[in-house]
Amino acid sequence: MEKEVEKKTIFRGNILNIEKYKVKLIDNTIASREVARFSGAVGVVLFSENRIVLVEQFRFPLGEKILEIPAGRLENEEPLHCATREVKEETGYSCKNIEKLTEIYTSPGFSDEVIHIFKADVEDHGEPNPDPGEFVDVVELSVEECLKKIKNGDIKDSKTIAGILFAVKLKEGD
Amino acid sequence: MEKEVEKKTIFRGNILNIEKYKVKLIDNTIASREVARFSGAVGVVLFSENRIVLVEQFRFPLGEKILEIPAGRLENEEPLHCATREVKEETGYSCKNIEKLTEIYTSPGFSDEVIHIFKADVEDHGEPNPDPGEFVDVVELSVEECLKKIKNGDIKDSKTIAGILFAVKLKEGD
Repeated sequence: MEKEVEKKTIFRGNILNIEKYKVKLIDNTIASREVARFSGAVGVVLFSENRIVLVEQFRFPLGEKILEIPAGRLENEEPLHCATREVKEETGYSCKNIEKLTEIYTSPGFSDEVIHIFKADVEDHGEPNPDPGEFVDVVELSVEECLKKIKNGDIKDSKTIAGILFAVKLKEGD
Repeated sequence: MEKEVEKKTIFRGNILNIEKYKVKLIDNTIASREVARFSGAVGVVLFSENRIVLVEQFRFPLGEKILEIPAGRLENEEPLHCATREVKEETGYSCKNIEKLTEIYTSPGFSDEVIHIFKADVEDHGEPNPDPGEFVDVVELSVEECLKKIKNGDIKDSKTIAGILFAVKLKEGD
């Protein structure tokens, strides 16, 4: 347990706030904690029969294009609603059989970010309708190709690795 | 591709810097990007025969204790060195057969954080020597218990889920 002694908001941004705390530790010493606070997000492992629907987009913080499961930030809505909305916006597809798999913490050392991970099946195909300024390519890969790309490092996004391996490799018996 | 037009450093912290950019998108519109920049980190899936060595610690941003693989931030060192150092500090164990599995991006939408994921075997047991202010309990679970805890949501940390499923579920054939 760490008890808050002092809190200062350093930065209020569009997608995150940065807060700096002084906290009292269990040995009564004082330590500082930097925290990035988020609204939460969703990611969807979207199956089109034996294929998985991914999106490829340029990620400015990394300076490269990467493959990810469709995902996005909560906008004052339930995670399930956000999941179907983001799938539709990014891929154009509507989905069925949507089911929550788990929640993941992306960076518990400094952030409260939670991503709700779902799986779903494609229902209807359609045209993507991304947010302004969002340029996303839809990439469909077989499950086997996804596993290969995780293994050889072509897929590096943590929600994507955790989500796909959870959906594909954790069986009833586990 | 997104081209940097303007950059402002908002915050320089102990573990991260926050930068705010204006960028030019491929359609020539201007957008803002908030980026959290890190030094990088490591995580180690540490096997003690058929058991996995985890650490449990209070994470202030989340307000709870969680289970994670041993992990820590790079301190001007190679990831491999950091991996053996962090295992030793957090668990007291020295390790052998250390091998890099992959790298993961924790939050590519707003952060450049990369975690280098290793697997290793316990060589010698010893006493933990955590950093000041770091209170960590060592928890050893069978592989089966780890998979159960991932499946039922008791393990939520993304590097831990991705690392364990990568180490345990991706076989030579994949």
